[in-house]
Amino acid sequence: MGGTLNIGLVGCGFMGRAHSNAFLQAPRFFPAGRVPVLRAVCARNRASAEAFAATWGYESVETDWRALVARPDIDLIDIASPNDTHAEIAIAAAAAGKMVACEKPLGRNAAEAAGMAEAVARAGVANMVWYNYRRVPAVSLARRIIEEGRLGQIFHYRAKFLQDWTISRDLPQGGAGLWRLDEAVAGSGVTGDLLAHCIDTALWLNGPIAEVSAMSETFIRERTHTLTGATAPVTIDDASAFLARFANGSLATFEATRYARGHKALYTLEINGEHGSIAWDLHDLHRLQFFDHRDEGALRGWRSIHVTDGDHPYMDRWWVPGLQIGYEHSFVHQVADFLRGLDEGRALVPDFRDGLATDLVTDAVLASARERRWVTVTA
Amino acid sequence: MGGTLNIGLVGCGFMGRAHSNAFLQAPRFFPAGRVPVLRAVCARNRASAEAFAATWGYESVETDWRALVARPDIDLIDIASPNDTHAEIAIAAAAAGKMVACEKPLGRNAAEAAGMAEAVARAGVANMVWYNYRRVPAVSLARRIIEEGRLGQIFHYRAKFLQDWTISRDLPQGGAGLWRLDEAVAGSGVTGDLLAHCIDTALWLNGPIAEVSAMSETFIRERTHTLTGATAPVTIDDASAFLARFANGSLATFEATRYARGHKALYTLEINGEHGSIAWDLHDLHRLQFFDHRDEGALRGWRSIHVTDGDHPYMDRWWVPGLQIGYEHSFVHQVADFLRGLDEGRALVPDFRDGLATDLVTDAVLASARERRWVTVTA
Amino acid sequence: MGGTLNIGLVGCGFMGRAHSNAFLQAPRFFPAGRVPVLRAVCARNRASAEAFAATWGYESVETDWRALVARPDIDLIDIASPNDTHAEIAIAAAAAGKMVACEKPLGRNAAEAAGMAEAVARAGVANMVWYNYRRVPAVSLARRIIEEGRLGQIFHYRAKFLQDWTISRDLPQGGAGLWRLDEAVAGSGVTGDLLAHCIDTALWLNGPIAEVSAMSETFIRERTHTLTGATAPVTIDDASAFLARFANGSLATFEATRYARGHKALYTLEINGEHGSIAWDLHDLHRLQFFDHRDEGALRGWRSIHVTDGDHPYMDRWWVPGLQIGYEHSFVHQVADFLRGLDEGRALVPDFRDGLATDLVTDAVLASARERRWVTVTA
Amino acid sequence: MGGTLNIGLVGCGFMGRAHSNAFLQAPRFFPAGRVPVLRAVCARNRASAEAFAATWGYESVETDWRALVARPDIDLIDIASPNDTHAEIAIAAAAAGKMVACEKPLGRNAAEAAGMAEAVARAGVANMVWYNYRRVPAVSLARRIIEEGRLGQIFHYRAKFLQDWTISRDLPQGGAGLWRLDEAVAGSGVTGDLLAHCIDTALWLNGPIAEVSAMSETFIRERTHTLTGATAPVTIDDASAFLARFANGSLATFEATRYARGHKALYTLEINGEHGSIAWDLHDLHRLQFFDHRDEGALRGWRSIHVTDGDHPYMDRWWVPGLQIGYEHSFVHQVADFLRGLDEGRALVPDFRDGLATDLVTDAVLASARERRWVTVTA
Repeated sequence: MGGTLNIGLVGCGFMGRAHSNAFLQAPRFFPAGRVPVLRAVCARNRASAEAFAATWGYESVETDWRALVARPDIDLIDIASPNDTHAEIAIAAAAAGKMVACEKPLGRNAAEAAGMAEAVARAGVANMVWYNYRRVPAVSLARRIIEEGRLGQIFHYRAKFLQDWTISRDLPQGGAGLWRLDEAVAGSGVTGDLLAHCIDTALWLNGPIAEVSAMSETFIRERTHTLTGATAPVTIDDASAFLARFANGSLATFEATRYARGHKALYTLEINGEHGSIAWDLHDLHRLQFFDHRDEGALRGWRSIHVTDGDHPYMDRWWVPGLQIGYEHSFVHQVADFLRGLDEGRALVPDFRDGLATDLVTDAVLASARERRWVTVTA
Repeated sequence: MGGTLNIGLVGCGFMGRAHSNAFLQAPRFFPAGRVPVLRAVCARNRASAEAFAATWGYESVETDWRALVARPDIDLIDIASPNDTHAEIAIAAAAAGKMVACEKPLGRNAAEAAGMAEAVARAGVANMVWYNYRRVPAVSLARRIIEEGRLGQIFHYRAKFLQDWTISRDLPQGGAGLWRLDEAVAGSGVTGDLLAHCIDTALWLNGPIAEVSAMSETFIRERTHTLTGATAPVTIDDASAFLARFANGSLATFEATRYARGHKALYTLEINGEHGSIAWDLHDLHRLQFFDHRDEGALRGWRSIHVTDGDHPYMDRWWVPGLQIGYEHSFVHQVADFLRGLDEGRALVPDFRDGLATDLVTDAVLASARERRWVTVTA
Repeated sequence: MGGTLNIGLVGCGFMGRAHSNAFLQAPRFFPAGRVPVLRAVCARNRASAEAFAATWGYESVETDWRALVARPDIDLIDIASPNDTHAEIAIAAAAAGKMVACEKPLGRNAAEAAGMAEAVARAGVANMVWYNYRRVPAVSLARRIIEEGRLGQIFHYRAKFLQDWTISRDLPQGGAGLWRLDEAVAGSGVTGDLLAHCIDTALWLNGPIAEVSAMSETFIRERTHTLTGATAPVTIDDASAFLARFANGSLATFEATRYARGHKALYTLEINGEHGSIAWDLHDLHRLQFFDHRDEGALRGWRSIHVTDGDHPYMDRWWVPGLQIGYEHSFVHQVADFLRGLDEGRALVPDFRDGLATDLVTDAVLASARERRWVTVTA
Repeated sequence: MGGTLNIGLVGCGFMGRAHSNAFLQAPRFFPAGRVPVLRAVCARNRASAEAFAATWGYESVETDWRALVARPDIDLIDIASPNDTHAEIAIAAAAAGKMVACEKPLGRNAAEAAGMAEAVARAGVANMVWYNYRRVPAVSLARRIIEEGRLGQIFHYRAKFLQDWTISRDLPQGGAGLWRLDEAVAGSGVTGDLLAHCIDTALWLNGPIAEVSAMSETFIRERTHTLTGATAPVTIDDASAFLARFANGSLATFEATRYARGHKALYTLEINGEHGSIAWDLHDLHRLQFFDHRDEGALRGWRSIHVTDGDHPYMDRWWVPGLQIGYEHSFVHQVADFLRGLDEGRALVPDFRDGLATDLVTDAVLASARERRWVTVTA
């Protein structure tokens, strides 16, 4: 099979750039049967859309996503607009028979996500959620290590996502670039934005989460709203942490915040098993820490694996051993796998069902924090 | 003031050694008015006591702690025996007018600890609990940084104490060296053994804890009991984690386990404030990580402070800059401060009230884990 | 000024890919007046050239570089073929009035490089050498720190480039991918391949090198030659190290090897000055270590700067703070700066004169190792 | 065999303290047949000697080392006075039939050291040099790894000793605490003080050094002399670096300086062999980095071994796994090994022959730097 994969992108912010780059880079490094072609980008502001199209090489622009969805020359609708638009666009795109790629979190809540998952299932269209961190080579290697049984029974899972960009009281909320502070648009604060990443990876590496006990906090309770100019209550969670039990019996702690000075995007995870442990962090994403208890006693130590060799996931296609890749490559890998999946008739994960699974956990976290009790995650 | 401080030690295990070393080393490096003299060591087994006395230079041995407490030539009773002996010995020693030093945790629970705190208060005797980590120079420096207001408002506190020494199913419980797995002797598992350290430091650095939500687990539920040879249920907690809110409004996560492969004694703490953050871990105890947001923008970074300079706490008395000290030095510092306190008429902290404060938190943690609900810490 | 910059690439190996990627990515992230267009790629093997062209989007192929140089639709000849081809192609390209970009080292020796520098000067054409590491953001930040005088008088410079890929005796020499082991093609071994990178950065950061004392070694002295199938002497240097004095009075050690187990591409540098020091390594290229002695005494420490903020060199154009870039981005930055230089009428460094300066040092190193004496570097 | 080992110490500075501590601590942690007894300390200034004796428990003081050497109640003369006193005292002590322990470097030059080695050999007395770093557990573990053949053929050795304490122009030279800047007393600067440590370890781990090419520098050429108050030329080397070839064919770089900002006592070493590599540094002396190429490909990484387990050298006698020791413990281990050697009739290394071997290398380094040529090390 060959030919093109015609892309229609909605949204031209940070994620619009990351996705566009991935569509352009994937065929250079991971040739597949179909080549993505950037047919159209859609944004409400025409000037923005046109500037974006000029930079990235989109052939045309739209200002109404409905028009984009209606275009017969588009194969895949890629949703990179704020969270409150995900469900409506995705459901319409699926109904129009388009493949759908959606930024995370899938919905603002599990109810939205369930509708989306149902829509793509009903339409039978290929779909995926951009939980890109699964495809950081070090994280993919972690998965391989676990699948090979090298850790044995898992006792502990630990994940954090720490940032510090909202500490200033002068930061407003709402509007372009700041919609993540506006609950109506975002759905929640760090729970949906950051914990969602931690949860998606955790479900992939360690299986279902059974129950959670959470707390959350809003440290700065009023901010000027960009769209109105008025001071308005902040209703998102600035910080959120929870205890969890996985279905496999392991215990976990999860935490996310935008109030951890000195950390810009420090997503960390650690897994402790009977025979070994692994640890990873996003600030040095090209390394995986691995401890193997079956190493000879006096010579045991945490190994710092520089995940840049030809036998590491995805790394045979980039440069030479020792030369690291960066953040955006995880998106390139997702596109590469999606394209190969189209060739081979295999669905990519994470798909919308996976996106829903994460939203079910974030819903449980938010409920637990609100109600101050342990909450069972809906299966 | 000068003269000797006559020590009577109860217990000749790991902690007996650490305390004895501290009494001998303190006057070499931190000369004070009074010089500790190792008068007597007490252990039920006379041969053990005599061997210990020979190694460490104790002048005499006892096999009954009551005899030790009764001796007029002893100024200070140092309790380094298992947890189930702390209260009885400490209360008797105080009643006999002795100074009392007690290994942590103070009691097996807060009720025991309250009795002990009351006893020393009533007797008016000097007292201290061996929460030694406060006096690791890097931790003392952390306290100084906080006291100087360099972090500003505190948003987050995070502590873990990770070990891996009980993962094997073949490890028995009870008896010498393994009483920490026997609830009747230890009071609890990692909560009293490891979390207690984390909590003591946290109370010192960040003030009172208001409420907690905890979970705990016993991964291996039956082990041979050393004293009986029979298989018996394990009733201690193998792992324990909790969410907390401090009185100052900051959020916290705490975790301890003996099932974290690759970590032998990894006590870590991190504090995030408005203007800066600090982090420390016991596996590299001579370093403090410090992030100062007020550093010039493009040159900000976590500073790895090698806490070995003359202007670092305690370090003017050891070697020269760059030459690190180790674990046992924290005990030496505690003795040094205690001796100086005697000279200057100042009580040392942590004293029995501080030991009680920690036990009140561990009691709340255990109750929360048992009852699956948020528990307010008794003030 | 606007329009296209028509590229003709010679060579379709590792560096051909890195350059092609840079030409394609630069305008996405660093828009400039002229947009590179991949007009033609040249390789002796037509099938290779065509496959490469298909992947990277070159419009046409050539199998003789002379034909490429003769094409009127080409503005810039980019030389990414083995070292023994650099001089002839560059001189012909300059004579034809083309801009010239050349992989490092510029020549196999300073005599070749001098001819090349003279040719571009005579022709007055824009030119550059792909010493890409100058444009790793952390290295660019190091340069800024030095230029701002933050280190004060420089006492020491230290650089190493450690690899381990030629340790096996079974590795052949010569031919595609292995021409770096063939002296006739490469000019030298690690001196021209790896030390050249260290030297280029050093000249940029710390000024001219006055004199050197070197040693080199060939650990495996015979290898099968891929092109002939016969065992042949290995005449390149497997390892090379030298002491140096810079014109500014600082002392230096340099070392490169392909026999350092555990290091794939560990280029490290450290500079010690009166007021501060910096350190960097290629295995974590997104970090710069910085020590500022003017920090307050007890709080001094090496800062690990995560060079991903908007106020770091080049990083305002990529993602958001905390998200790292990788190896290939240094080439993108070089193209971006070259394009902006064309817009603004400024020449890019490193140009061919800089390439010659490095070759003069590598010649001195090779002479010193051969003659076992201190050698003055020709100015 | 049992009884006491009666110590007579010369010098009560930094090293006098480190040695005294070692004599006191060794029998607590490493019981042996003989127990060191601190009989007498000798210093020219009686008040200093008496204060030192009071702190450390020396039974008596002397102000003339000849009187100390003459005392029949002394078994071992321990020389911790400045370098210019080593030879005379050691030779007299040996002639008086005393065991001799001497601080490093053994002599101010190889001629002095040769006389000392000859004296102890002629007298047949036990002797040792305090090259303490061999007995840092991580360094001892490195030796074990090499002896077990785990690294295979050695290609590279690299060592540095970096300090920054003499950068200020206001620092005087000479007198107490500053005699290391006075060539007449010290013999040389960093070569004898710091490189000597690097060389001793290197000879132990990697065998004899065949030849060297060195450079040295004195950055600040005049300083006030403490003893005279007058400005005087500084004749010691502030920095010294050399290339070397070992007898086993491996290449090496060595460097020491007191002008490396940010490093207080950063002694680092790295060894690269066919099958693996090791690295260590004094600022984190409790860790050994180990790379084993025979680990499974995709899981290879540098292991950070926390050298605190019971199966690590010396560590079964200290605390529990995970609890690190510090600098002074290396001296304790040397005394412990010396005492066990007395029990078992085995000589301790490094002895005076080893001290001489290092001085022969430092002499070659100084000659090479002076004469700007490769110098063969005298066997």
